[in-house]
Amino acid sequence: MNDTGASFPTNWGRWGDSDELGAINFITARARVRGVAEARTGVSVSIARTTRPAALIPGPMAPTQASSTAVQTAMMFTGNPPVAMAELMVITTHHPEVTHLDAMAHMVLDGHVYPGVPQADSSGPAGVRHGATDAYADGILTRGVLLDLAPGGRLPAAYPVTAADLDAAAAREGVSVQSGDALIVRGGWDWVTERDRPLPGITEDAVRWMSDHEIAIYAGDIGDARPPIKGHIPGALHMLALGRLGIPLIDGADPSALADMCARQGRHTFLFVAATPRIFGMTGLPVNPLAIF
Amino acid sequence: MNDTGASFPTNWGRWGDSDELGAINFITARARVRGVAEARTGVSVSIARTTRPAALIPGPMAPTQASSTAVQTAMMFTGNPPVAMAELMVITTHHPEVTHLDAMAHMVLDGHVYPGVPQADSSGPAGVRHGATDAYADGILTRGVLLDLAPGGRLPAAYPVTAADLDAAAAREGVSVQSGDALIVRGGWDWVTERDRPLPGITEDAVRWMSDHEIAIYAGDIGDARPPIKGHIPGALHMLALGRLGIPLIDGADPSALADMCARQGRHTFLFVAATPRIFGMTGLPVNPLAIF
Amino acid sequence: MNDTGASFPTNWGRWGDSDELGAINFITARARVRGVAEARTGVSVSIARTTRPAALIPGPMAPTQASSTAVQTAMMFTGNPPVAMAELMVITTHHPEVTHLDAMAHMVLDGHVYPGVPQADSSGPAGVRHGATDAYADGILTRGVLLDLAPGGRLPAAYPVTAADLDAAAAREGVSVQSGDALIVRGGWDWVTERDRPLPGITEDAVRWMSDHEIAIYAGDIGDARPPIKGHIPGALHMLALGRLGIPLIDGADPSALADMCARQGRHTFLFVAATPRIFGMTGLPVNPLAIF
Amino acid sequence: MNDTGASFPTNWGRWGDSDELGAINFITARARVRGVAEARTGVSVSIARTTRPAALIPGPMAPTQASSTAVQTAMMFTGNPPVAMAELMVITTHHPEVTHLDAMAHMVLDGHVYPGVPQADSSGPAGVRHGATDAYADGILTRGVLLDLAPGGRLPAAYPVTAADLDAAAAREGVSVQSGDALIVRGGWDWVTERDRPLPGITEDAVRWMSDHEIAIYAGDIGDARPPIKGHIPGALHMLALGRLGIPLIDGADPSALADMCARQGRHTFLFVAATPRIFGMTGLPVNPLAIF
Repeated sequence: MNDTGASFPTNWGRWGDSDELGAINFITARARVRGVAEARTGVSVSIARTTRPAALIPGPMAPTQASSTAVQTAMMFTGNPPVAMAELMVITTHHPEVTHLDAMAHMVLDGHVYPGVPQADSSGPAGVRHGATDAYADGILTRGVLLDLAPGGRLPAAYPVTAADLDAAAAREGVSVQSGDALIVRGGWDWVTERDRPLPGITEDAVRWMSDHEIAIYAGDIGDARPPIKGHIPGALHMLALGRLGIPLIDGADPSALADMCARQGRHTFLFVAATPRIFGMTGLPVNPLAIF
Repeated sequence: MNDTGASFPTNWGRWGDSDELGAINFITARARVRGVAEARTGVSVSIARTTRPAALIPGPMAPTQASSTAVQTAMMFTGNPPVAMAELMVITTHHPEVTHLDAMAHMVLDGHVYPGVPQADSSGPAGVRHGATDAYADGILTRGVLLDLAPGGRLPAAYPVTAADLDAAAAREGVSVQSGDALIVRGGWDWVTERDRPLPGITEDAVRWMSDHEIAIYAGDIGDARPPIKGHIPGALHMLALGRLGIPLIDGADPSALADMCARQGRHTFLFVAATPRIFGMTGLPVNPLAIF
Repeated sequence: MNDTGASFPTNWGRWGDSDELGAINFITARARVRGVAEARTGVSVSIARTTRPAALIPGPMAPTQASSTAVQTAMMFTGNPPVAMAELMVITTHHPEVTHLDAMAHMVLDGHVYPGVPQADSSGPAGVRHGATDAYADGILTRGVLLDLAPGGRLPAAYPVTAADLDAAAAREGVSVQSGDALIVRGGWDWVTERDRPLPGITEDAVRWMSDHEIAIYAGDIGDARPPIKGHIPGALHMLALGRLGIPLIDGADPSALADMCARQGRHTFLFVAATPRIFGMTGLPVNPLAIF
Repeated sequence: MNDTGASFPTNWGRWGDSDELGAINFITARARVRGVAEARTGVSVSIARTTRPAALIPGPMAPTQASSTAVQTAMMFTGNPPVAMAELMVITTHHPEVTHLDAMAHMVLDGHVYPGVPQADSSGPAGVRHGATDAYADGILTRGVLLDLAPGGRLPAAYPVTAADLDAAAAREGVSVQSGDALIVRGGWDWVTERDRPLPGITEDAVRWMSDHEIAIYAGDIGDARPPIKGHIPGALHMLALGRLGIPLIDGADPSALADMCARQGRHTFLFVAATPRIFGMTGLPVNPLAIF
């Protein structure tokens, strides 16, 4: 990490040397109450993208091309005739095509993961011992705020998202981001289908804003710029927000339906609920986060 | 299916010939409002069991035994030194060790899946075309009711759960089950660790009760009896509740922490939220359903 | 199967009701001696095609397209720094892109596999009990004969290969096919890259020729015609040669380098050796058959 | 590597800076002729162990324990009724339970693989660019010599195999090991079932013997001692034989049937043939090496 990184705010040690929750610690009892108060009609909308798996098929007509490498599936033989249909899945969790949660064990910073645990003490071939998604076994629940950076449109290519952009969106929407909120950012980009173009990205300035506002968790269609934007720290979202601040990230989110809903409802706050499958010892897991109105 | 089955209530056709929601149709706008009204403190508890995966490891010290076949994981090489840790997962979804949602495409009844679609039109080697979990992409949200059939204890082995048992639990808890509710049943059994014993099971009588009460979704630690109980239809929960009534099932749930919470809180109703990962075309998917108080 | 099929020669019962070797029984001690007599210089050439796997990769730059669905691989984390590199493979064996051996359990004919065993007694979700590749655990070794049906060129599209074609090739090459020989056929087609064109195929007439000549095993770049050729039994190679005669098939072979070698050496016979990995209970396995001169 | 290692013979650079064959270069035309001259009857015997895979099975009766983690299989749905049975395999190649070939890319020595290529230039998440098994696509064929270190019995636990042991076995058998030979060693141990005992191992002294005799490839039931034996270089077989000498290793071989055959036949030399599946870009692959008499 360069000098900017080293002098950047950090939450290492803030909640102890073995903490696994990271910024989820900001979700106090009060924040939870604020969250459920947003749920009135019970209408919910997914913030996940749809992952279309590649089917593994035997036989002469087996496909030889696949339009995805994120998830492979195989329909299984269960008897003849079958009384139930069931499949096997092969999942590469940390893949742009699958909306997934990055836990503390995912990001390695100078050989350590949040909050300063040596990588080898955190994870290895046998799985994760420190900083797995298990920390969120009972789900992540808090108030969610959508900051739509380009309502009805999209950010320019290679656009560096700063604190000013987040403040402007909040002002436009009339919302006040508070400690423990889930931050959902929409920039109008699809990093899978548009990966050949210069992607906009979250800058260190925006991450500092997240630190100042004590954001608990981040989800968005804007991640780290690719290629890195000149004058900005490469990989700021993953390195600084996840690595130093301990903010779990929901990578590959798709807030487009949510943005439509917010526009229709005339409000940009909601109950945010995310619960990964309860598989033990993982650096991340697929997740379908919901906004509940 | 035997005569009892054929004369059993069915929802085939009730919501059209191509319906994929099944009993989730019972979750009306009113039911949603009733659901979110249950969420007051925002404290949540998982209804999923913890799945401990088997690690696939190369090298001379590789394990040669595994205590699970539900999920295998492999930590992946991401570069040297690694800047991020990530894994591959192999998941056998419809496995007792992993809490998962069974969608309409899962259960085949006389060659058809709900609501009467030929199996071959529903699914094949390339995946599911009718009745996949996609139908629930925006999550399942409604009021949840825990019926604890054996508070502080467990049902006897091979116990046939009937409507009377469900009614007794509701009366004991002072709850009134309503149309569109999520039914969570606790019997105190772990069908993984106790699989060598005769498991209690949901009978056709209890399924008829679910039909009468217009249950939207079922989750529990009691599934179909194994071995089948004499005098009862084998596989009633899967064949009749899922197959004929279109009630999606959450197999392999673990409501023990929920039961503790309900006892502590002195109430057995809550907001139920379940959202499977948004992977397209699957007969079922791992899920971590939450009870929110 | 139609009438032609039912009246077709069969080896069911010829070597007993529980035989798993099929036509490999034709490889007598004498045939083995004849085989090794062909090996003089020890120069060997592969009859397998090269399978290029799709790499499963995490991270923002993960591929989203794959040019193969036959084999997926993941490089594994073995420690930091790594002292050894190792990978995981996911293999769809019966796939056109991977040269593989079809054992007796693979082909189901009217609900039975060679030599008349009900499918459910042969294989199921737990693997193969009858007719697995285990039968060939010590390798398949015999004399091999390449019949090049289109030296220096290729068969016409949708060409029906008959006994006359095989006889003509043998005459052209000056070879006499004998009981227990491995038959290698080259037609100059690649059923992966040219799958959109009408593929030539082995007809029932050619299979009858294999029966007459007591062929032990078949490998070739010509399989079953696709689409089926009018006037011929669809899937004759798999249904009749494997299903009724018990001739194990090496699907997806690539005899092009072998054809070059034979032309250079001026002989079309050699020692044929094929040994599948010794994985128990499989309907088929990848294999790299060799021609040894 | 310690001083002994650094002063140890090496083949780095012997056959150029980008060589991928390693000691297979010792297999000259003359060695091949010597190899095939051993094949007289054509009787073959496998030098591989049998790998029993764990079946991945859905449904309430799914196994929850597995006695192997080397290979998982899933029988696939191919249609109803099925006309062919086929499975998916998940293989952890470098696993003690599966006989596999280690290619040059497998062993990393001070950050480099044979013959001095930086690890990052040899392999990565996308697969192997230098030193994959592809180098042996046409199979490995040469004379094989079995040195049975404990005829009819087994080596003591934690026994350090030295040059003297190899010389003694050769003398006992009346064989003279020559340049380009495949060396098969039997010590009577099963490193899977007896992994809790101190395993015997190949010492640096024995590896030096392999260097002196210009062994082309090694297979055996004796690998590196575990735990390391005091006074000997840990991991000498992998580090020195594979890493420095470029001798491909067949890990997890089972020469017990071969030893019986040699004893019966009264000779310990034979034609050795090994051909890995032709999957591109792998550090290693399962293999079923044969001894042909």
